[in-house]
Amino acid sequence: MRNRTSAAPTMKDVAAEAGVALGTVSKVFNDLPVRPESRRKVLDAARKLGYSVNSYARGFKTNKTRTVALIWPTLRNPFFAYLSDAMIGVLMRREYRAIVTITNYDKQAEQRCLDMVRQNKVDGIIALTYNPDLEVDPAIPFVSIDRHFRAEVPCVSSDNFGGGQLAARKLLELGCRKLLFLRLGTDVASEADKRRAGFEAVCREGGVPFESLSVQNEEGFAPFDTFLDAHTHDGVFDYDGVFCNTDRLCYEIEKRLRAREVRIPDDVQMIGFDGIYRFDSEDLHCSTIVQPVGQIARTAVDLLLSPDRASLPALVCLPVSYRPGGTTKDGG
Amino acid sequence: MRNRTSAAPTMKDVAAEAGVALGTVSKVFNDLPVRPESRRKVLDAARKLGYSVNSYARGFKTNKTRTVALIWPTLRNPFFAYLSDAMIGVLMRREYRAIVTITNYDKQAEQRCLDMVRQNKVDGIIALTYNPDLEVDPAIPFVSIDRHFRAEVPCVSSDNFGGGQLAARKLLELGCRKLLFLRLGTDVASEADKRRAGFEAVCREGGVPFESLSVQNEEGFAPFDTFLDAHTHDGVFDYDGVFCNTDRLCYEIEKRLRAREVRIPDDVQMIGFDGIYRFDSEDLHCSTIVQPVGQIARTAVDLLLSPDRASLPALVCLPVSYRPGGTTKDGG
Repeated sequence: MRNRTSAAPTMKDVAAEAGVALGTVSKVFNDLPVRPESRRKVLDAARKLGYSVNSYARGFKTNKTRTVALIWPTLRNPFFAYLSDAMIGVLMRREYRAIVTITNYDKQAEQRCLDMVRQNKVDGIIALTYNPDLEVDPAIPFVSIDRHFRAEVPCVSSDNFGGGQLAARKLLELGCRKLLFLRLGTDVASEADKRRAGFEAVCREGGVPFESLSVQNEEGFAPFDTFLDAHTHDGVFDYDGVFCNTDRLCYEIEKRLRAREVRIPDDVQMIGFDGIYRFDSEDLHCSTIVQPVGQIARTAVDLLLSPDRASLPALVCLPVSYRPGGTTKDGG
Repeated sequence: MRNRTSAAPTMKDVAAEAGVALGTVSKVFNDLPVRPESRRKVLDAARKLGYSVNSYARGFKTNKTRTVALIWPTLRNPFFAYLSDAMIGVLMRREYRAIVTITNYDKQAEQRCLDMVRQNKVDGIIALTYNPDLEVDPAIPFVSIDRHFRAEVPCVSSDNFGGGQLAARKLLELGCRKLLFLRLGTDVASEADKRRAGFEAVCREGGVPFESLSVQNEEGFAPFDTFLDAHTHDGVFDYDGVFCNTDRLCYEIEKRLRAREVRIPDDVQMIGFDGIYRFDSEDLHCSTIVQPVGQIARTAVDLLLSPDRASLPALVCLPVSYRPGGTTKDGG
């Protein structure tokens, strides 16, 4: 690392070099909206002047490492890949590095990841975990995604309850009369459980007949097959509206219903949850409740880097939206 | 960071605690095959004894940071997400941290990522980039994926030429008589260009009529639409076998041919490249040439961490395989 004895470039220098206002430079480095052209100019000027070098040096001075650890179950699930991509992007725009660790849903691996990043100085940790007994070092800022540990650990999630309500209302609006909720997941309590609660609340309020089936990851899809066999007769399924707790599950159930010659969306309409695209196209796998991935990423980083750690919210729920994707009668 | 003056635990201590042979402990930390049960015991024992703490300390002593930077275009493309997941896994098993940076295919962002990680001490960089003029610091070990810079920078890729040959041979074996190669990508020379070369070599050898169409990312899918319009008449396409340079492109072309009422795979058979699953299922998007993601990850890390930097290969091509996935007559 080279020594700098001369005055380091300031934001003002960058603004002058880029030919933009000082406020624009500040916006770029605080990840606020700026015209792409201006952003490019600022980043080029910063690079030319070595401004980023100086900002890292500033980090060292303040005993900050400008490093954040992200702990994910896997990147093979596209929802986590999208979320990870968005968070790394937000962190980089704020000149933070992201250390990414993968747990493969293993509770011991989650603790090992935490221990590992604790040994290295990091400024904070953002994690999506399944270990309810995770020992979190209170000295390191920590933000949890989808999992609410306790009041001191802020949790960011989608409005899962509202998403469940939205799915039920949409199915009813599209003419469904007998609804089904399907869930595949772990038995660890999670914000995502509220998808079911929201869905059932709408059914109960409206006096709509419904059923819910909850299956644990370890059991795989076999219990669903048994259920589908019992409820399908000559291509007719006992339910005409199905809400699945993820797009992934919706895809598997759709495949299984089609194999039983059930017509989708003509006779059965289906809605998933997540809003995952096929590849990086804009094609959804199914009609779905879309999670605001970019907003989750920005909010988690905001909370993590907030200087005012005493007054952080315990839970932030971000708004979801509905998008048709071919498994409902409204197209897509 | 706490001081350690007492003797730090050794691999021998870990072996004793875990009740396994010393060789097993060594295998675990060198990412060699070990029974999952043994791996678990070793990692638990290492954690209990604080062995990993010591190994990081050893890292500091030897002036190693045990940190590797991964530079990716995006994690929204599932192939990159899979590869990234595999590399982070390999690095973690060897007790290395992964700093992940995202360039969004931007050449200036690639250079900024490189400069950023260079300022922080990292033990090496693995990158998939599109900037042919990337300034790589010769002092830091660097392994390139799919992009061959020059002899000193080892490149790891799939056997793209062999994959192109395999696709052509498979289409011919399945009865196709007039072949088409389609490519979407950047104009930067890449190992992936050999997919086309291998495909065309087989066509030429066999005297099979074929055509190739190459479109740049910036042009999007519009040139393909023009081409498909010109070559489709009443649901009949002028070619009966299509090889696309990625699964992503194969998916888009299939959608467009179906919209023109072309029957797939009955009248036109299609093969993609990558071997991407829908979600983390085992369902492919199309029949495809599968890249060995795990092997690419292990090989790249092996080369990066090799102590013998003078005798590294310039290019390592790893074997691909074919898997039917519904767009060919052999099922899947």
